[in-house]
Amino acid sequence: MRGVSAPAAPADRDARFTDVGRLVVRCPDRPGIVAALSGLMADAGANIIDSQQHSSDPSGGTFTLRLEFFLADLGTRRPDLEAALGELAGDFQLTWRLTDAARKPRLAVFVSKADHVLQELLYRVDAGDLRAEIAVVVSNHPDLEPVARAHGVPFHHVPVSPHTKAEAEAAALEIVGDADLVVLARYMQIVSAEFCGRFPERLINIHHSFLPAFVGANPYQAAADRGVKLIGATAHYVTPELDAGPIIEQEVARIDHRATVEDMRRVGRYVERQVLAQAVTWHVEDRVIVDGAKTIVFA
Amino acid sequence: MRGVSAPAAPADRDARFTDVGRLVVRCPDRPGIVAALSGLMADAGANIIDSQQHSSDPSGGTFTLRLEFFLADLGTRRPDLEAALGELAGDFQLTWRLTDAARKPRLAVFVSKADHVLQELLYRVDAGDLRAEIAVVVSNHPDLEPVARAHGVPFHHVPVSPHTKAEAEAAALEIVGDADLVVLARYMQIVSAEFCGRFPERLINIHHSFLPAFVGANPYQAAADRGVKLIGATAHYVTPELDAGPIIEQEVARIDHRATVEDMRRVGRYVERQVLAQAVTWHVEDRVIVDGAKTIVFA
Amino acid sequence: MRGVSAPAAPADRDARFTDVGRLVVRCPDRPGIVAALSGLMADAGANIIDSQQHSSDPSGGTFTLRLEFFLADLGTRRPDLEAALGELAGDFQLTWRLTDAARKPRLAVFVSKADHVLQELLYRVDAGDLRAEIAVVVSNHPDLEPVARAHGVPFHHVPVSPHTKAEAEAAALEIVGDADLVVLARYMQIVSAEFCGRFPERLINIHHSFLPAFVGANPYQAAADRGVKLIGATAHYVTPELDAGPIIEQEVARIDHRATVEDMRRVGRYVERQVLAQAVTWHVEDRVIVDGAKTIVFA
Amino acid sequence: MRGVSAPAAPADRDARFTDVGRLVVRCPDRPGIVAALSGLMADAGANIIDSQQHSSDPSGGTFTLRLEFFLADLGTRRPDLEAALGELAGDFQLTWRLTDAARKPRLAVFVSKADHVLQELLYRVDAGDLRAEIAVVVSNHPDLEPVARAHGVPFHHVPVSPHTKAEAEAAALEIVGDADLVVLARYMQIVSAEFCGRFPERLINIHHSFLPAFVGANPYQAAADRGVKLIGATAHYVTPELDAGPIIEQEVARIDHRATVEDMRRVGRYVERQVLAQAVTWHVEDRVIVDGAKTIVFA
Repeated sequence: MRGVSAPAAPADRDARFTDVGRLVVRCPDRPGIVAALSGLMADAGANIIDSQQHSSDPSGGTFTLRLEFFLADLGTRRPDLEAALGELAGDFQLTWRLTDAARKPRLAVFVSKADHVLQELLYRVDAGDLRAEIAVVVSNHPDLEPVARAHGVPFHHVPVSPHTKAEAEAAALEIVGDADLVVLARYMQIVSAEFCGRFPERLINIHHSFLPAFVGANPYQAAADRGVKLIGATAHYVTPELDAGPIIEQEVARIDHRATVEDMRRVGRYVERQVLAQAVTWHVEDRVIVDGAKTIVFA
Repeated sequence: MRGVSAPAAPADRDARFTDVGRLVVRCPDRPGIVAALSGLMADAGANIIDSQQHSSDPSGGTFTLRLEFFLADLGTRRPDLEAALGELAGDFQLTWRLTDAARKPRLAVFVSKADHVLQELLYRVDAGDLRAEIAVVVSNHPDLEPVARAHGVPFHHVPVSPHTKAEAEAAALEIVGDADLVVLARYMQIVSAEFCGRFPERLINIHHSFLPAFVGANPYQAAADRGVKLIGATAHYVTPELDAGPIIEQEVARIDHRATVEDMRRVGRYVERQVLAQAVTWHVEDRVIVDGAKTIVFA
Repeated sequence: MRGVSAPAAPADRDARFTDVGRLVVRCPDRPGIVAALSGLMADAGANIIDSQQHSSDPSGGTFTLRLEFFLADLGTRRPDLEAALGELAGDFQLTWRLTDAARKPRLAVFVSKADHVLQELLYRVDAGDLRAEIAVVVSNHPDLEPVARAHGVPFHHVPVSPHTKAEAEAAALEIVGDADLVVLARYMQIVSAEFCGRFPERLINIHHSFLPAFVGANPYQAAADRGVKLIGATAHYVTPELDAGPIIEQEVARIDHRATVEDMRRVGRYVERQVLAQAVTWHVEDRVIVDGAKTIVFA
Repeated sequence: MRGVSAPAAPADRDARFTDVGRLVVRCPDRPGIVAALSGLMADAGANIIDSQQHSSDPSGGTFTLRLEFFLADLGTRRPDLEAALGELAGDFQLTWRLTDAARKPRLAVFVSKADHVLQELLYRVDAGDLRAEIAVVVSNHPDLEPVARAHGVPFHHVPVSPHTKAEAEAAALEIVGDADLVVLARYMQIVSAEFCGRFPERLINIHHSFLPAFVGANPYQAAADRGVKLIGATAHYVTPELDAGPIIEQEVARIDHRATVEDMRRVGRYVERQVLAQAVTWHVEDRVIVDGAKTIVFA
């Protein structure tokens, strides 16, 4: 149980993840790859629960595959499976990741003053809809400490000023430690290229516009000035180039001429929380694969 | 401030409701009604901020109007405005309601064990997006007491059994007292006709299907059996006939063949919380007018 | 090219379907089935372009698979592939269908007086977005003959009266002949169980409501009476029980209190044309698999 | 009736527009304006069918109003109504437009080679859903002549080359004459500032992206390169600055990683036709009011 304000998840909810594994594979596309992989899994005695694949281009493109499988006694038999995959990897130039569905990834969430996205992540974790552990909340402002604490999550206040940016990042990295995923949940600071490099394909940001429209600061004011009829939000992996990393999810909401900038912010908060929570959920379920500047999402 | 886990709303957020009034009018449609009402408001010195109207049928139908206006010193001048409206009412057979936007309506929320809709109402109240006070939470189960308490809201456990239904309702009514609105937020009990009669057009329920499909219990199982491709939720005013009261809001979400009943319930929870929160928000902003079996929603 | 009013599709649009095949498989789920099938395809020299699969239940459920593949000289090598599949079929109790993507299915479209769905089907065929041939239009009214003729499609007027229903159906069946798919595109007649039996899983209807709400005639009037906030449409395979066949696709559109029944019909026409065109497109691309009372749609 | 391929609209469909007028008003906001206008309409004997208004800012902003009214013998009594409005206009600095709903505006539609948007406009006009007359189709390519002719609409081929742009525009303007509205329906040419100036707030373009994302040419390629998860379309009034005029309507459609640029174009065509048809419909129903860089849409 995650905190005082949340009811316990049903005890048997986690049971269905026992001995369930996920295999994510990427390699140059060529005939025989599916036959080889499914043969390997069949030999291992794994029962495929779900399988999704994509060929970016059947001749000369990238092949990606996500398998969800049941394998009795997964923990014990995992080394054998990994060895078999390792052998295949050489033949097919494949990179692969094997995860145990029962293990909850550890998240570090960065916020500033706005609480709406954090609240949603906490709600979904408590509800069991987002199977992860929020290990720590880091903020450059102290405001959201009560929110984190109410859910039993450690909170760290790391002030940032133009002069202390480097030290602040170093302190934050120390706190984050070996988190599986870092989420910038309306953290109003630009992180350094070094920070990005520490969490390759494991650092997600929510941008409060429909990218690539309204890159940068204050997108709702820009949207109001332009007179758009839909406002949006974009969850993306963070790369050193501002607001340019691979997009995971986007959504929009309709507004009309009556909407003030403040109304747009209000409506936008609900889009943002939905989009980021969805992107984080897909990530922790191993459904997102980065392919150059884009993502493949096996939703 | 509503509770320990929520940051304070900006202090000036409420200021914009000072001296703002809302007038909701319903009468038989006939020429001259708008001229008479807008003349009355102009004479009173009110500045119209927003005006929406509807004629169910220009000849012989019902005319409905919602005005939002600014009137300096509204509290002091309200009696004069009411007197003027009272005079007009006789001429035009109009029923009207005048509310002070600064006053937050008091809500009583009924729940059972599921917390998702209650959590959303609490979040929106804390965020200032739903301008109301949740005065009390009533439940036939004790499970959600920590949720209410964490937001500083009194919680009452009123067990219901087939034999004690009447006494339980009486006890609940006592607790609810003079609440402005009663919200059945996944309260899994059917309330009596007497209960409905106590809160005419002030009792809102969320039904977890796209009514009139799947009336009654266990709609997600019924939806799964039928193989629907969209699942929905419906917020409606409660009348003695089960699931047949005037609909305020509906929304759907897309599912596919992979969705189990449990998946539908999970997806549905997000639709339900959105639909009920929207309906309650419209109600407390005086945007919903019941017209026979239907509603007019000045969204 | 289909008719005088439509520009020719780009000449190379069809080229990408040459030597492309689709294999749709259904069988009891059991380990090894994917390995066996992908091995078979690899042995045949087929290059998998797209693969989607579903297990209704990993233990004891139904396994369904849709493969899209490239096989040079498909026409010549098809018999060998079929023989190999036939051998596998016995071992795994699988039913399968192999189609040549280059061959356009032949559609028979039934209409009454309303033209909107027919127009959309004709538009999408002309645009190359729906890869099918509309072989014939059949109607119980003569009104839409000009629409069909303008697109070069034969039109047959088969009047239906309560006394001549059986003869009319017989005449219609003769006209339809060996069509691959029969589409009831707002054909306001109930077809017989015999008619349904002639086109198992090959007879699609558009119902102008969000089923199972408003089964039967005049759903828009029923929707208006109930005061719904969304109206919908449902495309489904036809079975002898009215409006109860497996649902392929559903969509809704938002309306408000201003909508008259006529407005609902107007808005609904755009939902209907979208939903039916989508369902027919999925069907002709072998993306829909009937599984009891439901469908699996590999969209 | 508009052409051979379309069934006649019901004869009584137009009757409901007889003696129906629309008044659109814009002026500096100040108390008393609604009372004055509704008094004027009541004195004239007009029965208000629909009324929508907007204050951009209750203190010092712009007030806009759209009235739909019934006035028996509108044609005869219109001069008196106009005189009364003229008198009021001075007092309130109001600009106004009075239209007779029975009169169908005349549209000139510019296209290049793509037919999807033109087809949709023709369909909606034929169906009676877009109450306008398409007076002429102009194109820089001859391809769509059969489409226009099939609906009985004159078609003019006006070739454009870099050297003949000015002459071509002059020729096009001659053809367009006194059209009420000019629609650029995927006309792949940039029109001159002079052309824009000839049709102030009466020149609508469809841009095949979610503006302001992907301004300029080839937005679908740009969208594919960026890996967006939604593609959009924007209908806007044309001003001399490219793709920067007031937005009337926007919509998006979801795509996933499987979408090629060609898939995006195909999906986008359906969004474009919907968005432009909606914008044109609102315009001809006097529902769109330009307010600086934005629009007010009384939908």
